[in-house]
Amino acid sequence: MTEPLRLGIAGLGTVGIGVVKIIRRHAAMLEARTGRPITISAVSARDASKDRGVSLSDYAWETDPVALAKRDDVDLLVELMGGHEGAAKDCIEAALSAGKDVVTANKALLAIHGQALAELAEEKGASLRYEAAVAGGIPVIKALSEGLAGNEITRVMGVMNGTCNYILTQMEATGQGYNALFEECGRLGYLEADPNLDVGGIDAGHKLAILAAIAFGTKPAFDDVQLEGIQRIAIEDIRAAADMGFRIKLLGVAQRTGRGLEQRMSPCLVPANSPLGQLEGGTNMIVVEGDAVEQIVLRGPGAGEGPTASAVMGDVCDITRGFKMATFGQPATNLQAAPAAQAELPAPFYLRMALQDKPGTLAKVTAVLGECGISIDRMRQYSHDEPSAPVLIVTHKTSRASIDQALEQLQASDAVSMAPVAIRIENL
Amino acid sequence: MTEPLRLGIAGLGTVGIGVVKIIRRHAAMLEARTGRPITISAVSARDASKDRGVSLSDYAWETDPVALAKRDDVDLLVELMGGHEGAAKDCIEAALSAGKDVVTANKALLAIHGQALAELAEEKGASLRYEAAVAGGIPVIKALSEGLAGNEITRVMGVMNGTCNYILTQMEATGQGYNALFEECGRLGYLEADPNLDVGGIDAGHKLAILAAIAFGTKPAFDDVQLEGIQRIAIEDIRAAADMGFRIKLLGVAQRTGRGLEQRMSPCLVPANSPLGQLEGGTNMIVVEGDAVEQIVLRGPGAGEGPTASAVMGDVCDITRGFKMATFGQPATNLQAAPAAQAELPAPFYLRMALQDKPGTLAKVTAVLGECGISIDRMRQYSHDEPSAPVLIVTHKTSRASIDQALEQLQASDAVSMAPVAIRIENL
Repeated sequence: MTEPLRLGIAGLGTVGIGVVKIIRRHAAMLEARTGRPITISAVSARDASKDRGVSLSDYAWETDPVALAKRDDVDLLVELMGGHEGAAKDCIEAALSAGKDVVTANKALLAIHGQALAELAEEKGASLRYEAAVAGGIPVIKALSEGLAGNEITRVMGVMNGTCNYILTQMEATGQGYNALFEECGRLGYLEADPNLDVGGIDAGHKLAILAAIAFGTKPAFDDVQLEGIQRIAIEDIRAAADMGFRIKLLGVAQRTGRGLEQRMSPCLVPANSPLGQLEGGTNMIVVEGDAVEQIVLRGPGAGEGPTASAVMGDVCDITRGFKMATFGQPATNLQAAPAAQAELPAPFYLRMALQDKPGTLAKVTAVLGECGISIDRMRQYSHDEPSAPVLIVTHKTSRASIDQALEQLQASDAVSMAPVAIRIENL
Repeated sequence: MTEPLRLGIAGLGTVGIGVVKIIRRHAAMLEARTGRPITISAVSARDASKDRGVSLSDYAWETDPVALAKRDDVDLLVELMGGHEGAAKDCIEAALSAGKDVVTANKALLAIHGQALAELAEEKGASLRYEAAVAGGIPVIKALSEGLAGNEITRVMGVMNGTCNYILTQMEATGQGYNALFEECGRLGYLEADPNLDVGGIDAGHKLAILAAIAFGTKPAFDDVQLEGIQRIAIEDIRAAADMGFRIKLLGVAQRTGRGLEQRMSPCLVPANSPLGQLEGGTNMIVVEGDAVEQIVLRGPGAGEGPTASAVMGDVCDITRGFKMATFGQPATNLQAAPAAQAELPAPFYLRMALQDKPGTLAKVTAVLGECGISIDRMRQYSHDEPSAPVLIVTHKTSRASIDQALEQLQASDAVSMAPVAIRIENL
């Protein structure tokens, strides 16, 4: 009989328990598919007495995840605690240092310390796999690093944070403002302990940095991601975007430009009838473009017990089958430090402003836009009761710098009665 | 220096030339990603003198693909000739018999002879890979057999033939009938040499049989696929479906039922605003449902030089990286012979009929439906000039047997002036 692959699972939250359940429910199926039994030797979590709805009495208990990683009866560490410092990092380093393979769902750790961990893994001949770190149940790490390995990747983008997408789609569906929905997400348990990880775009930014490293052969560089959260998206913008045929999404885009690697995670308008525009609730979507494959789109649940455990098990099965894969798709020492391209490629923009309701104001606004080299594609002025007139403008393609210059001049003028809002439009 | 992996490419049509181009253009990138140089030793095609737009003078030429497979300087056979008998089968068997790995895009061969080839590959310790055989550039074989390996798959479905989808979407867009668009596809080179492979649903049926084998651990059983092509879809049905909020797609569905394995490839109505409903032209979409992952959706180009070559290269890179994978995701000797479930699960149906325009006819029709246990969800009768009245009915869920019984009774009555049309509705 073939020797089993013996797991140590650090972290018994939703995902950890999901993994335990799959291994118990599908032992025979997993062995048929991978050629070896997959067993659990030991688990680790803070509270051993808590009822987690599944019997853990067959497994040794370690309070210290580093001790778990070092156990002789653990071949593979599954790290599902999270956090980019402390116990998660310590136990992964302990496992890799001992030449043991690691599967993790820890996006922050990979985005921030991925380069050092990849180098450690390679030095020790161990695998570090993290399908569950990006886009939940969607096997996008595998698609990018294996399925599309024959492509020069030209662009990766997508919606990668289900909580933000839930808030944005619920704003449109219910007419509620951002704050009310943020509080609802808190009550529903949809928010990270530090909610800024979600609504500030940080969690999604971690995921984008990981995808960019694989796609472009660069060192993961989370610090270079231009981050903007959804906290300042007003219900007026949701409504106005819908009225012009768009939806607002927290969209990540990574691409090579002439100046270097552009990575941004920010609210964008996308066409309401595009695949990204139609994405509802907690679903994630990743778009990958390559020189041979043209474009593929992957959609699926971005979080939750089953989908995330499915992604963890995909990695566990690969390792059980004996697949050896470099952490970011090629040797860590090959990865380039790409300069961060801060200046974006030109794009159309959505502008919302409240004009002082007196003769000549609109002429002033259009003059400012013209001076900044911005031409107008579409404009709408709405009837109104207030002393200021709501105006929406969709520009032709222009640079962010031109938009910023125009916004500054408008604010300095007496034409507008509030700071104008500008949001990039991505026509996919 | 690491030894190169040396390819022999049999078939230099669009896809074969696409593979040659990728290997020439991206030699350094491929070596960085896989750890070994990938080279071409020899190629084989019928006409050596034809200009294929890329220089082939570096490669040895074999007129006989079996001789190509047996060459000492060929480690991996890439078979891109097609056809489920003859040269394609012979050269693949020759390569596998010699213990050499094979990458192919040949869906017919896999669907019809997959079991025997998988057994041969395993006996000889060779890999047989075929990502390009299903859904062009979409890495769906990899997603199903590796990324989702922790799931019991519950259903696989999708649109897998770009030519049929092009015809159906163009019928709606242009108002042209099936015959005109079939001829246009012929002129555009969108049709297989035997067009019935496309419009008869055979090509898509091959793909479904392959997906079902991986998903359900069954022997590939193309003969058990219930096949229905798009040849009888009338422009009236395209218009009427659109009017009721649906689109017609050639949809494949594979799922386990209480009676066995259901595999069907047939025209279905899907909601116009669903992801499948919105699929335009030659794009493919595969939906995979599993007990852990819930549902993932993969979309991408279903054919063409770049996308298909991308899929071939994904397999070539996996083999270069040393991944060893059983042909259908587990040992061929494990695969079950599942009984074919001919009786479909209940579904709503779309019915179109032309009623004799005299008092009491509609009463007769509804009486027949009622007697057959079919209840009506929605009905529309259109104003008309002819002596018969066009009527559309959307039923509640019912069995195909009940529908067939009702159609028979209606045709035997004097209520209808043409054979009624019935098409299954899939609400996704």
